[in-house]
Amino acid sequence: MYRSATCGELRISDVGKEVVLAGWVQRSRDLGGMTFVDLRDRYGLTQLAFNMDTNAALCEEARKWGREFVVQVEGKVVERYSKNANMLTGEIEIEATGCKVLNASLTPPFTIEDDSDGGDDLRMQWRFLDLRRNPLKQNLMLRHKLGIETRKYLDSLEFLEIETPYLIKSTPEGARDFVVPSRMNPGQFYALPQSPQTFKQLLMVSGYDRYYQIVRCFRDEDLRADRQPEFTQIDCEMAFVEQEDILNTFEGLIRHLFKAVKNVDIPEVPRMLYSEAMRLYGSDKPDIRFGMTFKDLTDLGQGKGFGVFDSAQAVLAINVPGCASYTRAQLDELTEWMKRPQIGAKGLIYVRCNEDGSYKSSVDKFFDGEALAAWGERCETKPGDLILVLSGDLNTTRKQLNELRLLMGGRLGLRNSEVFAPLWVMDFPLLEFNEEEGRYFAMHHPFTSPKPDQIHLLDTDPGSVNANAYDFVLNGVEIGGGSIRIHDRNVQARMFDLLGFTKEEAQAQFGFLLNAFEYGAPPHGGLAFGFDRLCSLFGGSEGIRDFIAFPKNNSGRDVMIDAPSEISDLQLNELSIVVKKLEN
Amino acid sequence: MYRSATCGELRISDVGKEVVLAGWVQRSRDLGGMTFVDLRDRYGLTQLAFNMDTNAALCEEARKWGREFVVQVEGKVVERYSKNANMLTGEIEIEATGCKVLNASLTPPFTIEDDSDGGDDLRMQWRFLDLRRNPLKQNLMLRHKLGIETRKYLDSLEFLEIETPYLIKSTPEGARDFVVPSRMNPGQFYALPQSPQTFKQLLMVSGYDRYYQIVRCFRDEDLRADRQPEFTQIDCEMAFVEQEDILNTFEGLIRHLFKAVKNVDIPEVPRMLYSEAMRLYGSDKPDIRFGMTFKDLTDLGQGKGFGVFDSAQAVLAINVPGCASYTRAQLDELTEWMKRPQIGAKGLIYVRCNEDGSYKSSVDKFFDGEALAAWGERCETKPGDLILVLSGDLNTTRKQLNELRLLMGGRLGLRNSEVFAPLWVMDFPLLEFNEEEGRYFAMHHPFTSPKPDQIHLLDTDPGSVNANAYDFVLNGVEIGGGSIRIHDRNVQARMFDLLGFTKEEAQAQFGFLLNAFEYGAPPHGGLAFGFDRLCSLFGGSEGIRDFIAFPKNNSGRDVMIDAPSEISDLQLNELSIVVKKLEN
Repeated sequence: MYRSATCGELRISDVGKEVVLAGWVQRSRDLGGMTFVDLRDRYGLTQLAFNMDTNAALCEEARKWGREFVVQVEGKVVERYSKNANMLTGEIEIEATGCKVLNASLTPPFTIEDDSDGGDDLRMQWRFLDLRRNPLKQNLMLRHKLGIETRKYLDSLEFLEIETPYLIKSTPEGARDFVVPSRMNPGQFYALPQSPQTFKQLLMVSGYDRYYQIVRCFRDEDLRADRQPEFTQIDCEMAFVEQEDILNTFEGLIRHLFKAVKNVDIPEVPRMLYSEAMRLYGSDKPDIRFGMTFKDLTDLGQGKGFGVFDSAQAVLAINVPGCASYTRAQLDELTEWMKRPQIGAKGLIYVRCNEDGSYKSSVDKFFDGEALAAWGERCETKPGDLILVLSGDLNTTRKQLNELRLLMGGRLGLRNSEVFAPLWVMDFPLLEFNEEEGRYFAMHHPFTSPKPDQIHLLDTDPGSVNANAYDFVLNGVEIGGGSIRIHDRNVQARMFDLLGFTKEEAQAQFGFLLNAFEYGAPPHGGLAFGFDRLCSLFGGSEGIRDFIAFPKNNSGRDVMIDAPSEISDLQLNELSIVVKKLEN
Repeated sequence: MYRSATCGELRISDVGKEVVLAGWVQRSRDLGGMTFVDLRDRYGLTQLAFNMDTNAALCEEARKWGREFVVQVEGKVVERYSKNANMLTGEIEIEATGCKVLNASLTPPFTIEDDSDGGDDLRMQWRFLDLRRNPLKQNLMLRHKLGIETRKYLDSLEFLEIETPYLIKSTPEGARDFVVPSRMNPGQFYALPQSPQTFKQLLMVSGYDRYYQIVRCFRDEDLRADRQPEFTQIDCEMAFVEQEDILNTFEGLIRHLFKAVKNVDIPEVPRMLYSEAMRLYGSDKPDIRFGMTFKDLTDLGQGKGFGVFDSAQAVLAINVPGCASYTRAQLDELTEWMKRPQIGAKGLIYVRCNEDGSYKSSVDKFFDGEALAAWGERCETKPGDLILVLSGDLNTTRKQLNELRLLMGGRLGLRNSEVFAPLWVMDFPLLEFNEEEGRYFAMHHPFTSPKPDQIHLLDTDPGSVNANAYDFVLNGVEIGGGSIRIHDRNVQARMFDLLGFTKEEAQAQFGFLLNAFEYGAPPHGGLAFGFDRLCSLFGGSEGIRDFIAFPKNNSGRDVMIDAPSEISDLQLNELSIVVKKLEN
């Protein structure tokens, strides 16, 4: 060991001890007679004191150290004259008696401080330096803790962690696969798993009863800020259970994690039907930290000669408390924000409820005070509130109003990252019809069970069938989702049929699962939590990148190691593949 | 829940309770008046009793069930007339009052019993049925337990589990990479990690101090029985440590695992120099459960006119206790075994030490009694023992004699899988010279530190330099290995140079690491345990396949899901690659 103590552990009770510390030079202050160095390691900071009077050579030596030098220092723990109550080790310092540079450091390209001066690109390129900063270190330590506590909880309920393969088979359904050419089987490819879905179902067929895995998954999608090509999920499955059992078990997990990691008591998690979530929040992952639910003004808005409303499928509003004071400029800015291509609203209608209870709107030409008062009543508007109204196609209007609601919630400070509002969203539709491809797609995945009492509708009205599927939502972010699975071969075959598979295709792609269902498959179901997102929400952030040690950028590149990269002709040859010439 | 109790939990104290069980029909016995069904789940077996007299309809129903049907049964816990002391639930049975088939089963292609009648190929194809058998279930439960206990131990020592990326960069050094074409970066490829080596070193540079991960790794090698293209390792790294610290920490891990999982106390793990291991056992992973160490007879064997010995670099022997009684036929069989191409010995010389202390050998023509007695003295031979002698090139003879020693140890019952003999093998050579390629290769990997006092020899005699590298060996199987790493940029650059990298190549491949060493890299080191092998040794087996839920066969195929497989032209197009036409 290069040390006898860490930089985080010495206290006033250690005064008098001879110690050896090792770590990084965080900062150095030369006060003439004395030089003070803050030495850093994972566990904390400790002040080193070098005295020019008693040991000039040593002090001169220490003065040569730059930031981020790795040094080893011998000395005695002494009480400080001026104590620092903000540091755990702030009552003591080390009176240095010897030292050694273990490794020098060039000047880092940005400062290793809580608030760094480095831009995103620079910090990604020098990730190993960025990871030295406290905020990232806290994130990764939080992630470790969440992993440990997740396993502790699931182990206590007799879940078995069982590893499933990473080199599996490419399937056409769902997102795009990453594939891996097989050298030993020329012309053939493995796929990296988008999730261990079919394997965990097979484990239920095998009788393992309760399975989990904290496992890497892969999706070759065009990336957004909060997506990574590789991500981690807490993947779980249980046999002989109904939906209620799964909800209770994993609500328990979340409750355990909040208690163990943040000492927060989570009450019983409320449940909301998917149809309600869409009606009241325009989203299948509502942020219920605040109200401002949607009000349907369609009946009140139509038939008054306002063409925009009259031609709309829906007129929906939210009541924004206390915002009647919004100026015209503020309202214009809001309107512009809604008109950006990402949102795509055609416009935004507002109604102010003045302090005297009277109403003033941007559509006064069509709606008199009485009409607006009816809106206000429907919206439970109080003097000083602002009603914001959107109209158009139902689905589009819901999506847009959801964005507006989240924006206003944020502006009003109703989305505090230290407040946690979990929610189950239940009874998702089984299928979505895709107009372009002219066929149904599975809303969750092809293995999700229809509601048993609706199975007959698969033949007559598949689009109306709901699934035994549920999402776990935290603060408006979907962090988990799952379903009761199909365990009957015929129902599964019917699903593949609805999804446009021929019998032969279904057998070729999923024959192993269809076979398995003929040899004693128990009723089963499960869910998966997005571990990266779970960590980020526990850490009070919505971005996942700084909760992953070595993330990729939005082009799927690791700019630190410079991957992906070209490979040699020898490698390509062995794999029996050729790279297509790129067109200029 | 489909059940109120599992099939493993009911005891005599539960008599009188109304319960619901669900599980698989293990077997069924129809005794006329009564039908007994053993119901199985992960937790055990429980006997169900159906009475023809009291409920004929229910009994008739149960008689229809085939093996592996999934059923749910209601009933009362009653005391058995004839108790079965071999079953945990053997004092009770369930007097059935109701039942339901949850899923039927076709007749499985092999019996779901501890000793199955299914061959390897059939069982691999129907892996989800094979996994129902007790031996595999025990293996996977053991694996879960080892994972939990590994994390518990490392967490208690403040190791952080930090996930590293799976989509990394291909490097030319070491084994062959699996690669992943990048759609977003046409013509470029990710590689799947052979280990998180460079990332864990970067985490040390980042100050994480103690890292671990139970992580999947990938090597595209031609497979042997105990190799898989994807395998799992317990991967660890520590900063500010010397070799001694690492050995103690991970010896502690192994000791903890043996205690927690098998209640076995492991004494201090002996240490052996690599050179000693090669001299005494002809192997860098000696099985020290038994002695039978090599004796060097070169001086005694040469100069007596026996050309085979005279022209040999080495004459080596083992003394096999109590085997003087081997018949000529047995000795011939041994000789043939040694001559197989896998071993490649030219012949085998034996010396019997008779009960009267006289010697009889296959080379009596060249060696008289006195000469053989000198051999016997060197080999510590006792009356009744058999000396087996090989000669030739030193390295080849050692390899061959190692195989012979292991064979004889096995035959004498000295390799009991319930006896555990761990060993550290230390001070491996840093480099191996490859005659074919005319250059040095890293024996461990290019990041391994030379012994500090031998660094100067890198310029003059690189082949003589030893490394701060160590392997953990258990019962003759290498289950772990590691090293103190280079943390000095110049030494690392010198290593790449010795391995035949140009400066530009080293910078292109490992620039991020060389850079990292210039920004305050601490001294560090670590090791990795092969988790699959560790599990198999704890399970008393040397094969890893049945300790992996879904292994690949020797062609790298998953025959159950039929992977790898062809992918669509659309996928190939998106990835900008073409499969080469195969030549006939």
